[in-house]
Amino acid sequence: SFYTGSFLPHRLLSDARSNVPPSAEFVARPVGVCSMFKLPIQNSAEGLDVAFVGVPLDTGTSNRPGARFGPRHIRAESSLMRLFNPSTGADPYHSLVAADIGDVNVNLYNLKDSCRRIREAFQKIVTQGCVPLTLGGDHTITYPILQAMAEKHGPVGLVHVDAHTDTGDKALGEKIYHGTPFRRCVDEGLLDCKRVVQIGIRGSSYTQDPYKYCRDQGFRVVLAEDCWMKSLVPLMAEVRKQMGDKPVYISFDIDGIDPAYAPGTGTPEIAGLTPSQALEIIRGCQGLNIVGGDLVEVAPMYDASGNTALLGANLLFEMLCALPQVKRT
Amino acid sequence: SFYTGSFLPHRLLSDARSNVPPSAEFVARPVGVCSMFKLPIQNSAEGLDVAFVGVPLDTGTSNRPGARFGPRHIRAESSLMRLFNPSTGADPYHSLVAADIGDVNVNLYNLKDSCRRIREAFQKIVTQGCVPLTLGGDHTITYPILQAMAEKHGPVGLVHVDAHTDTGDKALGEKIYHGTPFRRCVDEGLLDCKRVVQIGIRGSSYTQDPYKYCRDQGFRVVLAEDCWMKSLVPLMAEVRKQMGDKPVYISFDIDGIDPAYAPGTGTPEIAGLTPSQALEIIRGCQGLNIVGGDLVEVAPMYDASGNTALLGANLLFEMLCALPQVKRT
Amino acid sequence: SFYTGSFLPHRLLSDARSNVPPSAEFVARPVGVCSMFKLPIQNSAEGLDVAFVGVPLDTGTSNRPGARFGPRHIRAESSLMRLFNPSTGADPYHSLVAADIGDVNVNLYNLKDSCRRIREAFQKIVTQGCVPLTLGGDHTITYPILQAMAEKHGPVGLVHVDAHTDTGDKALGEKIYHGTPFRRCVDEGLLDCKRVVQIGIRGSSYTQDPYKYCRDQGFRVVLAEDCWMKSLVPLMAEVRKQMGDKPVYISFDIDGIDPAYAPGTGTPEIAGLTPSQALEIIRGCQGLNIVGGDLVEVAPMYDASGNTALLGANLLFEMLCALPQVKRT
Amino acid sequence: SFYTGSFLPHRLLSDARSNVPPSAEFVARPVGVCSMFKLPIQNSAEGLDVAFVGVPLDTGTSNRPGARFGPRHIRAESSLMRLFNPSTGADPYHSLVAADIGDVNVNLYNLKDSCRRIREAFQKIVTQGCVPLTLGGDHTITYPILQAMAEKHGPVGLVHVDAHTDTGDKALGEKIYHGTPFRRCVDEGLLDCKRVVQIGIRGSSYTQDPYKYCRDQGFRVVLAEDCWMKSLVPLMAEVRKQMGDKPVYISFDIDGIDPAYAPGTGTPEIAGLTPSQALEIIRGCQGLNIVGGDLVEVAPMYDASGNTALLGANLLFEMLCALPQVKRT
Amino acid sequence: SFYTGSFLPHRLLSDARSNVPPSAEFVARPVGVCSMFKLPIQNSAEGLDVAFVGVPLDTGTSNRPGARFGPRHIRAESSLMRLFNPSTGADPYHSLVAADIGDVNVNLYNLKDSCRRIREAFQKIVTQGCVPLTLGGDHTITYPILQAMAEKHGPVGLVHVDAHTDTGDKALGEKIYHGTPFRRCVDEGLLDCKRVVQIGIRGSSYTQDPYKYCRDQGFRVVLAEDCWMKSLVPLMAEVRKQMGDKPVYISFDIDGIDPAYAPGTGTPEIAGLTPSQALEIIRGCQGLNIVGGDLVEVAPMYDASGNTALLGANLLFEMLCALPQVKRT
Amino acid sequence: SFYTGSFLPHRLLSDARSNVPPSAEFVARPVGVCSMFKLPIQNSAEGLDVAFVGVPLDTGTSNRPGARFGPRHIRAESSLMRLFNPSTGADPYHSLVAADIGDVNVNLYNLKDSCRRIREAFQKIVTQGCVPLTLGGDHTITYPILQAMAEKHGPVGLVHVDAHTDTGDKALGEKIYHGTPFRRCVDEGLLDCKRVVQIGIRGSSYTQDPYKYCRDQGFRVVLAEDCWMKSLVPLMAEVRKQMGDKPVYISFDIDGIDPAYAPGTGTPEIAGLTPSQALEIIRGCQGLNIVGGDLVEVAPMYDASGNTALLGANLLFEMLCALPQVKRT
Ligand SMILES: [Mn+2]
Ligand SMILES: [Mn+2]
Ligand SMILES: [Mn+2]
Ligand SMILES: [Mn+2]
Ligand SMILES: [Mn+2]
Ligand SMILES: [Mn+2]
Ligand SMILES: [Mn+2]
Ligand SMILES: [Mn+2]
Ligand SMILES: [Mn+2]
Ligand SMILES: [Mn+2]
Ligand SMILES: [Mn+2]
Ligand SMILES: [Mn+2]
Repeated sequence: SFYTGSFLPHRLLSDARSNVPPSAEFVARPVGVCSMFKLPIQNSAEGLDVAFVGVPLDTGTSNRPGARFGPRHIRAESSLMRLFNPSTGADPYHSLVAADIGDVNVNLYNLKDSCRRIREAFQKIVTQGCVPLTLGGDHTITYPILQAMAEKHGPVGLVHVDAHTDTGDKALGEKIYHGTPFRRCVDEGLLDCKRVVQIGIRGSSYTQDPYKYCRDQGFRVVLAEDCWMKSLVPLMAEVRKQMGDKPVYISFDIDGIDPAYAPGTGTPEIAGLTPSQALEIIRGCQGLNIVGGDLVEVAPMYDASGNTALLGANLLFEMLCALPQVKRT
Repeated sequence: SFYTGSFLPHRLLSDARSNVPPSAEFVARPVGVCSMFKLPIQNSAEGLDVAFVGVPLDTGTSNRPGARFGPRHIRAESSLMRLFNPSTGADPYHSLVAADIGDVNVNLYNLKDSCRRIREAFQKIVTQGCVPLTLGGDHTITYPILQAMAEKHGPVGLVHVDAHTDTGDKALGEKIYHGTPFRRCVDEGLLDCKRVVQIGIRGSSYTQDPYKYCRDQGFRVVLAEDCWMKSLVPLMAEVRKQMGDKPVYISFDIDGIDPAYAPGTGTPEIAGLTPSQALEIIRGCQGLNIVGGDLVEVAPMYDASGNTALLGANLLFEMLCALPQVKRT
Repeated sequence: SFYTGSFLPHRLLSDARSNVPPSAEFVARPVGVCSMFKLPIQNSAEGLDVAFVGVPLDTGTSNRPGARFGPRHIRAESSLMRLFNPSTGADPYHSLVAADIGDVNVNLYNLKDSCRRIREAFQKIVTQGCVPLTLGGDHTITYPILQAMAEKHGPVGLVHVDAHTDTGDKALGEKIYHGTPFRRCVDEGLLDCKRVVQIGIRGSSYTQDPYKYCRDQGFRVVLAEDCWMKSLVPLMAEVRKQMGDKPVYISFDIDGIDPAYAPGTGTPEIAGLTPSQALEIIRGCQGLNIVGGDLVEVAPMYDASGNTALLGANLLFEMLCALPQVKRT
Repeated sequence: SFYTGSFLPHRLLSDARSNVPPSAEFVARPVGVCSMFKLPIQNSAEGLDVAFVGVPLDTGTSNRPGARFGPRHIRAESSLMRLFNPSTGADPYHSLVAADIGDVNVNLYNLKDSCRRIREAFQKIVTQGCVPLTLGGDHTITYPILQAMAEKHGPVGLVHVDAHTDTGDKALGEKIYHGTPFRRCVDEGLLDCKRVVQIGIRGSSYTQDPYKYCRDQGFRVVLAEDCWMKSLVPLMAEVRKQMGDKPVYISFDIDGIDPAYAPGTGTPEIAGLTPSQALEIIRGCQGLNIVGGDLVEVAPMYDASGNTALLGANLLFEMLCALPQVKRT
Repeated sequence: SFYTGSFLPHRLLSDARSNVPPSAEFVARPVGVCSMFKLPIQNSAEGLDVAFVGVPLDTGTSNRPGARFGPRHIRAESSLMRLFNPSTGADPYHSLVAADIGDVNVNLYNLKDSCRRIREAFQKIVTQGCVPLTLGGDHTITYPILQAMAEKHGPVGLVHVDAHTDTGDKALGEKIYHGTPFRRCVDEGLLDCKRVVQIGIRGSSYTQDPYKYCRDQGFRVVLAEDCWMKSLVPLMAEVRKQMGDKPVYISFDIDGIDPAYAPGTGTPEIAGLTPSQALEIIRGCQGLNIVGGDLVEVAPMYDASGNTALLGANLLFEMLCALPQVKRT
Repeated sequence: SFYTGSFLPHRLLSDARSNVPPSAEFVARPVGVCSMFKLPIQNSAEGLDVAFVGVPLDTGTSNRPGARFGPRHIRAESSLMRLFNPSTGADPYHSLVAADIGDVNVNLYNLKDSCRRIREAFQKIVTQGCVPLTLGGDHTITYPILQAMAEKHGPVGLVHVDAHTDTGDKALGEKIYHGTPFRRCVDEGLLDCKRVVQIGIRGSSYTQDPYKYCRDQGFRVVLAEDCWMKSLVPLMAEVRKQMGDKPVYISFDIDGIDPAYAPGTGTPEIAGLTPSQALEIIRGCQGLNIVGGDLVEVAPMYDASGNTALLGANLLFEMLCALPQVKRT
């Protein structure tokens, strides 16, 4: 009658090749060390098709800190998630082998060294042929993650959901913080710029034409105001066409969603996307050659209900379900 | 210049047959022992057309507990509610006699015995010819309530708003918890299954076709994703046709609504209904032969603002206004 | 199996002359409309030895508002309190008849008119020969309460626990707010100044000798710093001598206690009294001719745990137990 | 490397006639004494085109108090706002001279005297030819503000966003509180009644036809339910026509917006406007002869995330951007 | 650079027989799946000297629920704890082999079945010769734990810290809930009653002599009021004498400590013990034949700071340090 | 009737050489832009005897971030502080000229560059002959502050209150974070090591003798456990002797105080000092040659009441009152 993250699932399975989280029919929801989705915990991505990995870094944050506790709280709230996705028919756990491989051991006192540590950690994951789904952390982390992704896959397409383009050049004299990751990626050729879409962009700005840089690179910038009260299903049909069958990375900043749904974040902007639009976006990525994804900027202390972290857990589940390897009914 | 739950209202009335809550024009909002809508408190349903009754039980909860304090906080926040419903023209307090009859004295340590206590309490209420409007409590309570309702009215039609179908068979070896009430009702023939509609259903699942059971019984399952960004007025026209003029019960799980609006609940699911849709649903029940209703799963400690409980109070006011006895302008 | 504030207690009793709250052995703690200590609710003090009465006013507050919700939350948390006081042997509910008589219907928009309303309400209570124990509200309310008390009893002795002397003369041009009640009482001769003790006084000041006024009137001012890490039992022996057998009123500002124990208050001052010292003070009043008491300045929204209100409920229970009519073992 | 509200901006400017807040590229967001939008602080409106001014009053509140801390928290969260409005092309800080002129020194203990103080303060501002943008405070404050506005401009048009019409006549015997400001304005001829629109109105009422008074005056009352799931762009085209080129005042009660987005307020009503609709309303005022505006009823303690205050800051920024003097690209 | 609960520690060690948590010098505090003290996670007690085990049950709670999330939050906050105890010189991790073995899979819907599950789980642990240190859960759980302990060790001595004696006989008709565990233990002969001490007892009661039962059994009842402002070092010298060298179990209810320090609990009582007294008690158990211990009643949602859980983690660390096997300098 | 940070004080004064905050008798507490103690704001330390300066940095934090918002919240809560200190007789504002000079513009993304910026900012302050009293920020900031202090005064004596010695050498490969400032100061000869006292030290450790380094340098380490339930007046007499008349700096980490009183901090340790002991320490520094002081590690989001920030504001007021220039009655 014990339950730990790595123990019980195996007992519930006949197929040793799968890691299937226990159902709440058999294991009470509050039970167990909090691994992602109650999956087994292992020390590396070895043998995995998908690895959930945390990057508890928030020292690239410009306003309210706290995303360092994103992975901890996303894991805790993920205990509510179940096995199947009746909306898409996805059956992820019988389709691929997933586990929680813990966190990258970031350097909280040195952002550049953290970037190195993150890059190296993701190099190992992708080398093992595993798709990383990341629990952030602030958005700085996507830069070193994409260094590793591009090293493996070449320049990647990007589905980027965010209130901000994160293409600043510098702040406070620094080139690296959560406002610059995609500028750095462009600088290093990590993105296939014609296959970059940024959705949910909004808010006041420091220049009169803040989207110029993005558009100059060839990014598609979809403003939140162009999404208000609209289904994003048509948009995603266009995005799928744009992405083709080449590698795509999904980077989802929780602040892309309106702060009513995601109050636990550091730089909220009003009048954002809804969770149903977020589902349309991720479900709309089904069929793409998704090579990785992240969910960043959950700063749980600004939402005592836990619901921002729960939203993050849901969106990571949807990314899992959208992976090309997943069987659907 | 004192005000208690049962005292002042009478002073404000000419018609002794009514219980009309005091207006904030005469009694300050924070004033008084917190009865539902500042109605008089009495010890039984005797002489009442409508009884507000609390069922402070949450030991059927699978995830976050706390709904035992739902009745307390719904009462407290209901102090903001007024007398008329200008949207529907309803004038409930001059149409019927309502009061707060306190709470069922549940057994917190024995869920089955709680069910017995609830059933017996509601048998008394319906025997007295009174319509119960219930402040939950987790959704387990609707099972014994419907035992009492069906004993009086025969199998009832059901308008069920929820993120979940609550038609599980067992969990942790038990047949009774907040995931199974409507399965138990079907088992016991309490529902007129062709007149059951479930609205707002969504979320991940433990089986690939989680709605099969419901549809096999003849329930209409309206998924949240089929409600996104839509008015539910057309749906409710269909529901009214489906329900006919036979008895209908409304069971409203606050988690049917998106957690942005109702963070204070135990098993939140993203991408739910909006409060305006909730109003469309309850207002759309006007004209039906409503014999009772409940508002369940408010767990107030996850929403320090009090607004989830206030939403619950509003929805109970709308149920009151939708009752067939209520005059409208 | 229903429970409302006024119903169940009687069922538990043989002696019709008492109001004994139900034990949690028989009625679950979360059950019932929240009356003070789960006592019956009645509309006046008629027939009562002791009346619990709320005064939900906070418009005399200089800093953080919110004490208008003190009565509501003290009542809610008082559901945890039991029947006997094993520390003092007091058996209050078999000694006197107590009930909750609701709230004074204050005028939130006019402080002076609120004072009139409070005075008149308390005049009625004391006229009926009943001891009022008041749930505040900010400390402004003690001024009109003492007007009523002195009208009945003549100038009263005062045990005043507070971080502040509340003997200012004016603020923002006004004579009435929560910083001046005891100055106004002196002005009107409501206090027997040689029998006034103020305990827990501390904090920065607007004049160099802020206690001069008090001492000039003959008040005993006991600074918090003279209480640090000391039992107050010896102090209270002196206080009892000082008070003699003439009427005494207890006015307890929750901010007398350190904000660690009572964070939910409007003008907190560091380095205050402890709850054990508070108990020593109130228990040390046993034997005195207590004619009334109040517990003020609980502003519950600054303490989401509910514990400040619970502390207030405990202190009001101790005042009840300290009344001269109460039998002890 | 110091930064205070009034110091750094000037260093960043060549044009001494402007006050331009520092960019987060040069000054970290958490840095500095919290003035509105990090603008310079000055003691009067002298030399300003626009003055941000706080009115920290909440003693006109009928339910949950706290709006006295609205100005403080709106200022704090406004540190996230930037310089340009890419949605409208507005460049406010190079178009007009704005500053934070602090707060009106209200009388917390006397609502009528507060009204006098507010009126006099705004008389000074408008006398100096400056447009006031006000950080409330509860809605009572708009009455004395409009006294000052009308003295200068004659009866003004009004774009009023709110859940409530705020046209009550009296409560608790008083003519002045946050439920009556616009009735008082009508009484005194401060409004050009044919040019008054109220948007977002909803909720239960104390009379069967609660909008009769408004319509009798000629106000246009736009119910929230007529706004659900609709763009308000067409409405605002009509409003602009209605307003013509005569003076218009914008009064924005944050409770006009749904409590999911603005939980930090005192009298929330369910099923309200969305922030995107709020933006459509304020942006739709562009082109009008706006002579002042306020954002009221932010009660920050009911939203620990700070996001209600941040929403308020955003809406004030939009008012600034909508002013006729502002250049657009 | 990954870190999971079970991975990194081993890398840091030369001695394969130890499980030593990683130092924050090498692994950042927010990093890693939250196991207790960042110890390795394993599925049974096999090979362990000490097992940390969670029992996430709270359906025996009479007032505020939530202790089901105690284990989750104690684990999360335990990430702050380090390796040595400089106050006692204890070096636990080089003295014995400890791990986190996850949670007992309780039955949330059936308290009696949960007791069976807990008893069986602890029978396995003690059979393997391992000392269990338990993360509660409400105090109900100590009854089945002591069934397992006494089966192995015979009737045990008990150091019980609590505000309550937990020796009630029944509530709401039930023999098992968090108010009765030690009565049930006496009924079944699990306690060596002459070696039972209860410390911190206080609060109002349902009978006039609430400690009679305890004293009749031979328990030593140490009231909180006899501990106020006193060191408990002398008491513990007496307790050590009383306990002798026979098996002792430590059961620590966090509500023994004052709610200022431990607001996150379900049935708080004012005027309790301090954390320094708690340390004196547990450190005073050093030298005893401790065979197990628990820390119960942490209900984390009532303390958003996380500090109640952190206090619980500290006290469990002190229990670990007090075990007889631990070497000291 | 406007009030801003810099305006009103002057009006209240006859003596132009003083900055005296306005009394709440004349200016309501919630009124005004939040400067420290409602003092005037200026852009440099020019002309000041004492400068309050914020350092909103928290990227040196090992556990919970948030101290970057310490200055903002300490300023906000300082609005409750008054003018005189009746406990010590100090009259600071008529003794010296104090103002709020805003914040150091830290580099959030580069800890070393932040140290440079802080050092340079404090070099300017001390060069102007002004005593800095600093609002932190995490404890990292004391290292560059002491670089500036020692440059001016030579190696300084140190009264350091903290749960931690903050004399670590490295963490995560870095020499600079909030665990190392005093080691770095020793390395650079900034401290007069024979005149260093550390008070309140406690908690688990990563080595068996964690105080060895401090004692080897000649520091006096006063453990919290040696302070439990004791007055620190005798200790401070010894400290004054130890410090002599040479320059002394006070560095006060709020976590030196027990988390019950100061929950809003990042690395809380149980069983700490009390606020009364904190007052004894700072008041005990009266008579010393205090050349500066700081109050660090207030992370306000973990204490929604605001009381940790208020405690910080009180302690800074006490530091101000303890300065040698201050006249006392
Ligand atoms: Mn981003
Ligand atoms: Mn973003
Ligand atoms: Mn349900
Ligand atoms: Mn549900
Ligand atoms: Mn007072
Ligand atoms: Mn006070
Ligand atoms: Mn309004
Ligand atoms: Mn309104
Ligand atoms: Mn217990
Ligand atoms: Mn207990
Ligand atoms: Mn420190
Ligand atoms: Mn520290």
